[in-house]
Amino acid sequence: MYDVHAIRRDFPILSREINGKPLVYLDNGASAQKPQVVIDAVTRAYSEEYANVHRGLHTLSNIATEKYEGVRNTIARFLGVADEREIVMTSGSTEGINLVAYAWAAPRFEPGDEIVLSVMEHHANIVPWHFLRERQGVVLKWVDVDVNGDLDPEAVIAAIGPKTKLVALTHMSNVLGTVVDMKTVVAGAHDKGVPVLVDGSQAVVHAPADLDAIGADFYAITGHKLYGPSGSGALHIRKERMEEMRPFFGGGDMIREVHKDQVTYADPPMKFEAGTPAIVQQIGLGVALEYLMELGMENVAAYERGLRDYARDRLEGINWLNLQGRSAGKGAIFSFTLEGGAHPHDISTVLDKKGVAVRAGHHCAGPLMDHLGLTATCRASFGLYNTAEEVDVLVDALELCHELFA
Amino acid sequence: MYDVHAIRRDFPILSREINGKPLVYLDNGASAQKPQVVIDAVTRAYSEEYANVHRGLHTLSNIATEKYEGVRNTIARFLGVADEREIVMTSGSTEGINLVAYAWAAPRFEPGDEIVLSVMEHHANIVPWHFLRERQGVVLKWVDVDVNGDLDPEAVIAAIGPKTKLVALTHMSNVLGTVVDMKTVVAGAHDKGVPVLVDGSQAVVHAPADLDAIGADFYAITGHKLYGPSGSGALHIRKERMEEMRPFFGGGDMIREVHKDQVTYADPPMKFEAGTPAIVQQIGLGVALEYLMELGMENVAAYERGLRDYARDRLEGINWLNLQGRSAGKGAIFSFTLEGGAHPHDISTVLDKKGVAVRAGHHCAGPLMDHLGLTATCRASFGLYNTAEEVDVLVDALELCHELFA
Repeated sequence: MYDVHAIRRDFPILSREINGKPLVYLDNGASAQKPQVVIDAVTRAYSEEYANVHRGLHTLSNIATEKYEGVRNTIARFLGVADEREIVMTSGSTEGINLVAYAWAAPRFEPGDEIVLSVMEHHANIVPWHFLRERQGVVLKWVDVDVNGDLDPEAVIAAIGPKTKLVALTHMSNVLGTVVDMKTVVAGAHDKGVPVLVDGSQAVVHAPADLDAIGADFYAITGHKLYGPSGSGALHIRKERMEEMRPFFGGGDMIREVHKDQVTYADPPMKFEAGTPAIVQQIGLGVALEYLMELGMENVAAYERGLRDYARDRLEGINWLNLQGRSAGKGAIFSFTLEGGAHPHDISTVLDKKGVAVRAGHHCAGPLMDHLGLTATCRASFGLYNTAEEVDVLVDALELCHELFA
Repeated sequence: MYDVHAIRRDFPILSREINGKPLVYLDNGASAQKPQVVIDAVTRAYSEEYANVHRGLHTLSNIATEKYEGVRNTIARFLGVADEREIVMTSGSTEGINLVAYAWAAPRFEPGDEIVLSVMEHHANIVPWHFLRERQGVVLKWVDVDVNGDLDPEAVIAAIGPKTKLVALTHMSNVLGTVVDMKTVVAGAHDKGVPVLVDGSQAVVHAPADLDAIGADFYAITGHKLYGPSGSGALHIRKERMEEMRPFFGGGDMIREVHKDQVTYADPPMKFEAGTPAIVQQIGLGVALEYLMELGMENVAAYERGLRDYARDRLEGINWLNLQGRSAGKGAIFSFTLEGGAHPHDISTVLDKKGVAVRAGHHCAGPLMDHLGLTATCRASFGLYNTAEEVDVLVDALELCHELFA
């Protein structure tokens, strides 16, 4: 039984009020709130078990190292990755994707080589590739979404040409909620000998992950959206790609030996993890993932589907609201504008007066905004602790906006 | 009055025991413990005030943004930097130095260009430059320390030739405790038109920082050694250098506009801060720096000088102990080996039985180990909460080692 009210009690912030109203937190797409077990793990790590990892031989360092390194296995289990040595700890998806751009793509891509992207990518999965365009003449090839916001995997595969060196796609749009059939994309790309990078920032938060079955070469996740600490995350890299990569950050821990005139590097994944890591953040992420696995990601996904259906029904019933993204299998992320030209920023501000937290802006998705012919939307993005009652509060608050701005 | 016993009560972990003995934490060079105010700030941020920063318009996002952005000013004040826009938030010194290597040095250095380094650099300030050597033929020029572990600023300046493009130096050795006269180095390098990067990871922990007076071009610090959270830090970049730099990480927040065929970047410092930052870690760092400023870094420095003098006297009195680094003005960092060949790892393990946490190994300083003719040392590194009594416990425990291994 998925008891959302019991779950809500695990998240201390959800009992607070905003402007005298109960907080209705619908900004999960930007970052999720943290359960008490994660906060407690962070507190315990600093209060009782803190030291630097790897290089110590004293008790506190051994405890911290064991806990920190244990998270690699937790991440692998959560993601459905058999070999935990394919997991690189990062500060989030942005670092993960930049790591691939700098350490794998930059040294091997020639002018004229192509990267296939969808028009609904987040800037984190666009700007690192724009760098390669600006700096070394790489060509970005864009695949559009259809009128519902769906991305046809065959269109992606068809865009792959003889000069294509990488397909870089989000698994789930942070604006439209569209889920991409990544297994088909990866199979088609691999048939053509082209590696695939997946931005999994949103997807793994809302459904069970099975990365080994998908078979992508690179898969980036971010901890703060997964109910874990800010500054945590991971990148899955398939062994074959790891072997092709040069190191990214230079520093402690990623080396075997350093002399004046030479340097040798540690084996992956350590080769890609320089310096003192985000020790306590990763320990917190491990606890967050254990919390999610205990709830069961199938259960989370089923619950959120119900929430999505209810929210979709209610929002689609409002005839002065323009909903973006009508993919049938979408996640519970709703971007919209109001007819009459009220600016999304103003809508967001009014909703806040009713305790409802939504985001307004371009959502770090410039090309998608261009595609939609918009400069900004409001976005209500749901998480595992949201309720149908909160959908009602959102709709009531939107009706107030309509009255104010119509 | 510097009341070390009152200060110790601010750090919850210091009241714990290790192997039935009170913890004597002498691994501050690797990472420092956290005061309760920092732990509380982290807890409060997650429990009451958490959201993503910058792009929200709702209350929680506004609170988080205000607190996070306020830290930039706190860091600037702590470092003696007048213009907070010269402060880039990082995950620590390793990211800071790599940022300079990738975003400033790599695009401008030609084969044969030289970087001047001291032999006592940490790997974080070596390996990024080895990358430039391996990848683009840059030459590393090493300046030795003298028999006491002192670095003559004039020797550094003399090593600067017509091909030198950067001087990259630690402000304080993490192994020897040597403090470098950075003001003289920077003045001499600037006279020759050569920028200076400073690894301030250790220096700012133990003495007041006055970066504007030193005048270095780049100055990297790390939060976890400053009694702040893991995964926090900052890089100071002088305005002139910032203007020469291309962006490093691509992603959200560091852009002005992103389209399919073009991208424009935000002004510094945002240009160098991509994606969701380490929100809560930086908030915690801000609180740690406020804590330090309340104690007064002059007072911390004076107290630690006394601790250093006492520890030096006691350790120099042991004739079977080889102390590395005898610089008169050194910090309270003591690296040593025992005569008779006991491995530093074994010594560390025995000390741990007595509750004493020291580090053993190469301390991420390969070239210095080569210079000293050693593969490893034990290192006792002191912080603002350590006491003379703890020095005595260390010495007693070392005497036990001597009995066991002699």
